Amino acid sequence: MSPSVNIKRLLEARAELTDGGASGAPIVMSSRIRLARNLQGMCFPGRAKTAQRRDVLSTCENAVAQLPHMQEATVLHIDELGELERQVLVERHLISRELSQGEAGSGVIISREQDCAIMINEEDHLRIQVLRNGGSFEEIWSVIDEIDSKLEEDLDFAFSGELGYLTACPTNVGTGMRASVMLHLPGLVIDSQMDKVIRAVNQMGMVVRGLFGEGSDASGSIFQISNQQTLGEAEQDILTRLKGEAIDTIIEQERNARQRLLENEPEKILDKIGRAYGILQNGHVLSSAEAMSHLSLLRLAIDSGFIQEQWRGEVDRLLIEMQPGHIQLAACETIDSHERDTARASFLREETRRIPPPNL
Amino acid sequence: MSPSVNIKRLLEARAELTDGGASGAPIVMSSRIRLARNLQGMCFPGRAKTAQRRDVLSTCENAVAQLPHMQEATVLHIDELGELERQVLVERHLISRELSQGEAGSGVIISREQDCAIMINEEDHLRIQVLRNGGSFEEIWSVIDEIDSKLEEDLDFAFSGELGYLTACPTNVGTGMRASVMLHLPGLVIDSQMDKVIRAVNQMGMVVRGLFGEGSDASGSIFQISNQQTLGEAEQDILTRLKGEAIDTIIEQERNARQRLLENEPEKILDKIGRAYGILQNGHVLSSAEAMSHLSLLRLAIDSGFIQEQWRGEVDRLLIEMQPGHIQLAACETIDSHERDTARASFLREETRRIPPPNL
Repeated sequence: MSPSVNIKRLLEARAELTDGGASGAPIVMSSRIRLARNLQGMCFPGRAKTAQRRDVLSTCENAVAQLPHMQEATVLHIDELGELERQVLVERHLISRELSQGEAGSGVIISREQDCAIMINEEDHLRIQVLRNGGSFEEIWSVIDEIDSKLEEDLDFAFSGELGYLTACPTNVGTGMRASVMLHLPGLVIDSQMDKVIRAVNQMGMVVRGLFGEGSDASGSIFQISNQQTLGEAEQDILTRLKGEAIDTIIEQERNARQRLLENEPEKILDKIGRAYGILQNGHVLSSAEAMSHLSLLRLAIDSGFIQEQWRGEVDRLLIEMQPGHIQLAACETIDSHERDTARASFLREETRRIPPPNL
Repeated sequence: MSPSVNIKRLLEARAELTDGGASGAPIVMSSRIRLARNLQGMCFPGRAKTAQRRDVLSTCENAVAQLPHMQEATVLHIDELGELERQVLVERHLISRELSQGEAGSGVIISREQDCAIMINEEDHLRIQVLRNGGSFEEIWSVIDEIDSKLEEDLDFAFSGELGYLTACPTNVGTGMRASVMLHLPGLVIDSQMDKVIRAVNQMGMVVRGLFGEGSDASGSIFQISNQQTLGEAEQDILTRLKGEAIDTIIEQERNARQRLLENEPEKILDKIGRAYGILQNGHVLSSAEAMSHLSLLRLAIDSGFIQEQWRGEVDRLLIEMQPGHIQLAACETIDSHERDTARASFLREETRRIPPPNL
């Protein structure tokens, strides 16, 4: 099967999943946990020769193929993918930007439900990630813990009794775990409170960043909150602390901000939502950032009951599919930024015409 | 009949006129000519005592009542009108801002078709104005010339064989005539050519100003072009020169600008039109200036065939009725600027919902 066919299947399957209602919840868009693991006695990917990388890839693929969770999975080798295909995978958060630039011997295995993606030869030999729309860490942890344990039956992970799991970068040593949630925080953004929130979260030793990873701006009021610490604390303690100290507090603050805005300045919010809807349905030139911001407001409209809940999956899908790689893959070619903005506007006009006007 | 009832009748009659298709043309929204006249031997209004002003008012009203053109006209005394009613008349260009601040003895007589308004005791004893949607100076001139001649049969106008008609302000001495057209120039505005056009027109001794008279900004890409000179040239020569040298040239430049924009940057124009339509239909806070700019783009869409011609009258009506005085009169009270912006958005949402999406 050619990679293009594989990618096509992934995109189609995902559309099915989203239409089926597997979309996020108000405020919490998705939650994910990833574990970094390495094979005992093998060079870390950054230092390995191609032959060694291929060895690791093949060993890991065989182990992953045994996992009950990964039956009917899609196996992709990065060096066999076109540039746009890699970009689409990054935009779907199925692979990291780093893996998308990987050489021969890098790959990813994606579960049929696309709720589990195992990257091979990214920074570490294995990066196992499990995600859920909305979702809770407890549920995700039980899945990823089982996958990790099953893989460890086949594979010999690099582990130190004193330090825990060994990783290419010292910041991951210990649990090798990074847990994160994607939060939709338009209330705090409109109310100019995000700077304060980011400072508070950082002081707890946790990290807030924009939708597209480190250093990127927070587009569409979507932020990722994750733990920084991986050493000296058990996984479940880290998860409990991340949720209890940071996430629950931010969710509460976002709820309060929304309520305050709707009480004190209802027209301001209704105006923002109305304009977003009107521009999505009628614009002819739309950058990613602007589209993101308008779709974010439609999501807020759904949370607030102005647009019916049934459209949440649609809006979440559009947030993914209006990104540059997706727009270009749909156009079947690489097109420049201006052509993308035109194609994006056309795509969004078409798609949002089906959504009835917000009941403002 | 109370003034309120009179004003109500005016507004309703106007709606009928507009619905009947008496709307402007592409680019030329309306044309008008006004003549300044004064009664021989009477103090100019600015120097007259109230009793003298009342005398002039009554004399002029009697003369105007004889005009065939002014049968079934509406007679309004400024000091009997509420503040909002005066403002509404200014917004409809039926009286000047100066007259709206007039004291006892100032009035206006408006023809049934609202194509003729004769102000009494503004700066001069009489300001006769005739206007047409779209329209040509020849047609307007023949109407106003007849009105002027008929009035002169009853009234003794202050006239000097050497200077012509005498007026309160020396800049009107001679013909006492000011001719103007209201031009809709979005192409030149978007193409950043208006500064150049204004300079060129000024050098010809003519004046360009924004929609709401001297010193005001050009809102909605609507500009008024008028003659400056009133002395030493016959009326028809002034009209011919104004049309031939200035107006026809600007219309040609506007046509070229539109064609160039639609050829070179079609998405830019389609995007502007689409967003204007989307925001009018969905916004919840709209200032006069923003509403004006969006409605101006709908008018451009009609000129370009993206919206059907039948909606031109509607858009021209909305350009008038979304102004602050109209919005407040509809709300039956004086409301602050923020409440007006909310009421305006609500009015425009309602009204523009009927206009089908531009076929872009």
